[in-house]
Amino acid sequence: MTTPSPVQPSRRDRANALRFLAIDAVEAAKSGHPGMPMGMADIAEVLWNDYLQHNPNNPKWFNRDRFVLSNGHGSMLQYALLHLSGYDLSLDELKNFRQLGSKTPGHPENFETPGVETTTGPLGQGFANAVGMALAEKLLAQRFNRPELAIVDHRTWVFMGDGCLMEGISHEAASLAGTWGLEKLVAFWDDNRISIDGNVEGWFTDDTPARFEAYGWNVIRDVDGHDADAIKAAIEAAMRSEGKPTLVCCRTTIGFGSPHKAGKESAHGAPLGKDEAAATREALGWPHPAFEVPQEIRDAWRAGNAGLVREHQWGQLFDAYAARHPEEADELVRRSHGDLPEGFSADADAFIAKLQVEAHGIASRKASQLAIEAYAPLLPELVGGSADLAHSNLTLWKGSKSVAGDDADANYVYYGVREFAMTAISNGLALHGCFIPYDATFLVFSDYARNAVRMSALTGARAIHVYTHDSIGLGEDGPTHQPVEHLASLRYIPRNDVWRPCDAVESAVAWKAAIERTDGPSCLVFSRQNLAHQARSEAQVAAIARGGYVLKDSDGAPELILIATGSEVGIAMQAAAALGDGVRVVSMPSTCVFDRQDAAYRESVLPKACRRRVAIEAGVSDFWRKYVGLDGAVVGLDTFGASAPIEALMPHFGFTADNVAAVARAV
Amino acid sequence: MTTPSPVQPSRRDRANALRFLAIDAVEAAKSGHPGMPMGMADIAEVLWNDYLQHNPNNPKWFNRDRFVLSNGHGSMLQYALLHLSGYDLSLDELKNFRQLGSKTPGHPENFETPGVETTTGPLGQGFANAVGMALAEKLLAQRFNRPELAIVDHRTWVFMGDGCLMEGISHEAASLAGTWGLEKLVAFWDDNRISIDGNVEGWFTDDTPARFEAYGWNVIRDVDGHDADAIKAAIEAAMRSEGKPTLVCCRTTIGFGSPHKAGKESAHGAPLGKDEAAATREALGWPHPAFEVPQEIRDAWRAGNAGLVREHQWGQLFDAYAARHPEEADELVRRSHGDLPEGFSADADAFIAKLQVEAHGIASRKASQLAIEAYAPLLPELVGGSADLAHSNLTLWKGSKSVAGDDADANYVYYGVREFAMTAISNGLALHGCFIPYDATFLVFSDYARNAVRMSALTGARAIHVYTHDSIGLGEDGPTHQPVEHLASLRYIPRNDVWRPCDAVESAVAWKAAIERTDGPSCLVFSRQNLAHQARSEAQVAAIARGGYVLKDSDGAPELILIATGSEVGIAMQAAAALGDGVRVVSMPSTCVFDRQDAAYRESVLPKACRRRVAIEAGVSDFWRKYVGLDGAVVGLDTFGASAPIEALMPHFGFTADNVAAVARAV
Repeated sequence: MTTPSPVQPSRRDRANALRFLAIDAVEAAKSGHPGMPMGMADIAEVLWNDYLQHNPNNPKWFNRDRFVLSNGHGSMLQYALLHLSGYDLSLDELKNFRQLGSKTPGHPENFETPGVETTTGPLGQGFANAVGMALAEKLLAQRFNRPELAIVDHRTWVFMGDGCLMEGISHEAASLAGTWGLEKLVAFWDDNRISIDGNVEGWFTDDTPARFEAYGWNVIRDVDGHDADAIKAAIEAAMRSEGKPTLVCCRTTIGFGSPHKAGKESAHGAPLGKDEAAATREALGWPHPAFEVPQEIRDAWRAGNAGLVREHQWGQLFDAYAARHPEEADELVRRSHGDLPEGFSADADAFIAKLQVEAHGIASRKASQLAIEAYAPLLPELVGGSADLAHSNLTLWKGSKSVAGDDADANYVYYGVREFAMTAISNGLALHGCFIPYDATFLVFSDYARNAVRMSALTGARAIHVYTHDSIGLGEDGPTHQPVEHLASLRYIPRNDVWRPCDAVESAVAWKAAIERTDGPSCLVFSRQNLAHQARSEAQVAAIARGGYVLKDSDGAPELILIATGSEVGIAMQAAAALGDGVRVVSMPSTCVFDRQDAAYRESVLPKACRRRVAIEAGVSDFWRKYVGLDGAVVGLDTFGASAPIEALMPHFGFTADNVAAVARAV
Repeated sequence: MTTPSPVQPSRRDRANALRFLAIDAVEAAKSGHPGMPMGMADIAEVLWNDYLQHNPNNPKWFNRDRFVLSNGHGSMLQYALLHLSGYDLSLDELKNFRQLGSKTPGHPENFETPGVETTTGPLGQGFANAVGMALAEKLLAQRFNRPELAIVDHRTWVFMGDGCLMEGISHEAASLAGTWGLEKLVAFWDDNRISIDGNVEGWFTDDTPARFEAYGWNVIRDVDGHDADAIKAAIEAAMRSEGKPTLVCCRTTIGFGSPHKAGKESAHGAPLGKDEAAATREALGWPHPAFEVPQEIRDAWRAGNAGLVREHQWGQLFDAYAARHPEEADELVRRSHGDLPEGFSADADAFIAKLQVEAHGIASRKASQLAIEAYAPLLPELVGGSADLAHSNLTLWKGSKSVAGDDADANYVYYGVREFAMTAISNGLALHGCFIPYDATFLVFSDYARNAVRMSALTGARAIHVYTHDSIGLGEDGPTHQPVEHLASLRYIPRNDVWRPCDAVESAVAWKAAIERTDGPSCLVFSRQNLAHQARSEAQVAAIARGGYVLKDSDGAPELILIATGSEVGIAMQAAAALGDGVRVVSMPSTCVFDRQDAAYRESVLPKACRRRVAIEAGVSDFWRKYVGLDGAVVGLDTFGASAPIEALMPHFGFTADNVAAVARAV
């Protein structure tokens, strides 16, 4: 450790620069959270100035450390760090904190701000994202590093608060991180004893260090979060951890430095106010006006040159690696760009064409497994898993190898019964880069992961969520396991693509679309039960990718259109046969994708002139009003299901060709 | 402990009766989970025969112990227990396991089967329900018991598996149970080292006893779950626990007794098969044919007479209590019946009428607090709480007292940041009886609790979920905190009533409806921002309770109908004023309730003849197609929001009277 010379700013000066940028920005915005930045500034100062391996000139530098602010309400801490260390985040952006169009939204957003790795705010998920990032680093290192050529070698650092630790997802994610021995993951617990409702003693009495030791973590207790030496010692100890992730327990004071609000919940989520901000300036010896940081303190923060040197050195290492391992280097570059292997699309199309010929009448979950089996050998970036339902979700393929060990080809995650962390870890894997993760559970239990699915969509994570047992068709497990509202609810998440294929061919197309989609997640929804194969022309096979298409056309303009998805397409086809020549059947595996097609295509599938429309889906009927209007009808399910064999359930709830035909005749 | 005489069936015989009823029922159904009943039968036998305080003749006996099977896939264990101990669950019902219309669905359902306290299967939630039930007992005991007159005095017993413990909700619920010191809660961990994907060593390496000690639990380690004496000793120790809930860690063998499947995941979720069932009969010395239990074993299980005596003795105690504390006794009886105090409805109506006159222009979250403040003094059964957002959700009222202590009037739960456990605990409080719970978080974080909201609806729990900050109107916190798809998604849960009031009057009506609803949950959705008061006639005030009503009518038959909810009603009213006399405005605070009204009423509000309809809601637009059809329009929000002040956001996303008027003119 170097002792600063008298002319250099002190560590506290540097930390205070963070504090006052946060205080001033929150004051200017008239909203925000000053308490956390004031409390964690000293930790952030030590970490960012002495340890963080990054390059502010290139926020996407491949081998950078990942920094995640899981207590995302303290966003101004991160913005201040990015600004001062030299990222492309101007002082004007800080002055525009929480304003429309700024790069400084209320909570950190990876798609808005350079240097922000993931979007945080929904508590606990940043921590789980970080577990995913640390897993990504471990898997890449296992796969690519060679002796003396550790081209993948970074840490993942997380800041988290009491709120993150109270959330259930912290349990799930910490348990997995411990099991996997993610030794390059370091979490700093902002142990300030305050949450929004006040002192946590009334609702948060866990012995958190003991709890994390029970997960197999390296726990560093009782660190004074305002003592730079203590923080440094803790970080050094964390970096020496072998085979265990580290929790650094930092005792801090929320709103540190505020004479009247330090240590109180009043510092948490509202501006200090003009007088208290002034009093804090006085108390901390910070005489500078709002948003002004003295040049010598700015200079002390600048990390751009060091970052350039760091990336350059790594570049030399990578060049040496590429010289000796050109194929691996090419693959890593390809994966880091998110590009698929050349020829993937054509190979997938050939597989799809083959399926159309082979005419399998199998469960779509089985078809999903066939697709994985076909695509995964081409895609080393595909890393799969299931929440303890591998043999039900059918997510394993013959090349699956568990990530729990140190296999270079590890690509399968046994998540245990942890749907929420699974999904947030997928997001972390995707946002880290070099991976296309897929995860899986029963469709009904997407509920357990719901906000992480939303965060997949918001962050633009290229994550694939596989949901099997997609309706009452799962049978005997009963209403607790039978989704009803889930298809509609998932489709309503903005930017989330949902697919519910009707047979093996559509299943393979859905998988291809999900893999090729670069800007967001896909939910692939599959049946437990066998589904009939549907005949198609080449043009129809090609049209599946448009989300909805004419599977069986009428003679002449349609007098009646049946619209169905998944297991109900077969029923619709039977009903159409009974109804006669004027009936068109539209298979609609993805309403999300169909809705993005141009108006002419949509009109060609669902001509406005035909108002006699019936939608059939074993889920809430109201969703389908967007396609059938007030004049059409829906054969749907608006109650909970029941426990019985599928053969009893489907007729009981009206999912028969006869009933569909009867409903259709009445519209 | 009494030693059985030679002619009496052994404990193992009694346990084997459970095992084989489970094995046989699963065989007959050709689906189900034999492994858990076989593994936990010995524990269940000891608990039910020696300790459980219940009366099979009256499954609703007030002071019964609550038994919760959190690992609900082992439902046949519970059905066998209920059948053998004398509940109204016939052998034919067991033979009809998992068939349509039976009382023996795939997972235990409280609304189907006498003696089942809650619906389980979604893992971890049964445990959290049990925490709610144990909290209910604690609160009732504090409120009603008097020296020598402990009329509320029961335990809550939970069976849980590895899956429950992996789920994040187990963390949230266990943490709260420890904080509250629920000493009459006893959880049995079925530590069989097997989950669906196999031996858990690859994905569940927690030191669970240490983890629960970190929560402040009394942990009894290393109990042989197949040794009745060890189980008895553990239960005795658990019953002596002071100030701590107890976890009994039971080492068990899944599929105990099966020669080829014991200890393996193959025993978990599929029938043993004819041959293995026969081999298990051989191995366990159970020569009896399928579904046959020898009479002496049946006799040994019968608990009906003991139950009658037990309830009778309690009845005498209650009579003595009633003689000395007649008001308290009356109140307890009233609450146990789920009846509201006489006059509540009229008092609420008077409050609502007063609000209509007072014309508050306040945030609906503030209006919600006014309603709580008005109703809660009348309703000692109302027990509230928030997930660490009390001052944002505005869930505290002046009579709020924390449940963490031993106050007789305790009625407020500081849940911490634990939305999922909060909601499942609400369900437990409601299902226990004597309480109407309300819980609260931001609407967007209903995601974290989503499956528990579904379980509120499925179980018919009278729970009230308060969700504030209901749209982009919350402003600066940005898209992570701004709900978009949530209103629609919550409305799609069957049997779930969602209310989004437009002003203080509608807010008070929504609260009244939620309190008076006896057969399911209500989600009350409130704004952060102030909302304009709406003028209404008495008839209009009365019509609010119908879910949707004409707030401003056209002159003559409507030429255009604007339909809005919550904060968008004010915008619709402004737009209507600009659009002229032919415009009707429908306020639709609850589509769920409106949809249940008779056809004539619905037609009177939304006449079929008027197809020029525009819905306005700051949420996904497609939901509203059910009301506006293909010809109407929706001013909705189909993207994520943004971080900015409300004044910037609402116009940015088109929520202005001008835009609504423009859209309306175009339909």
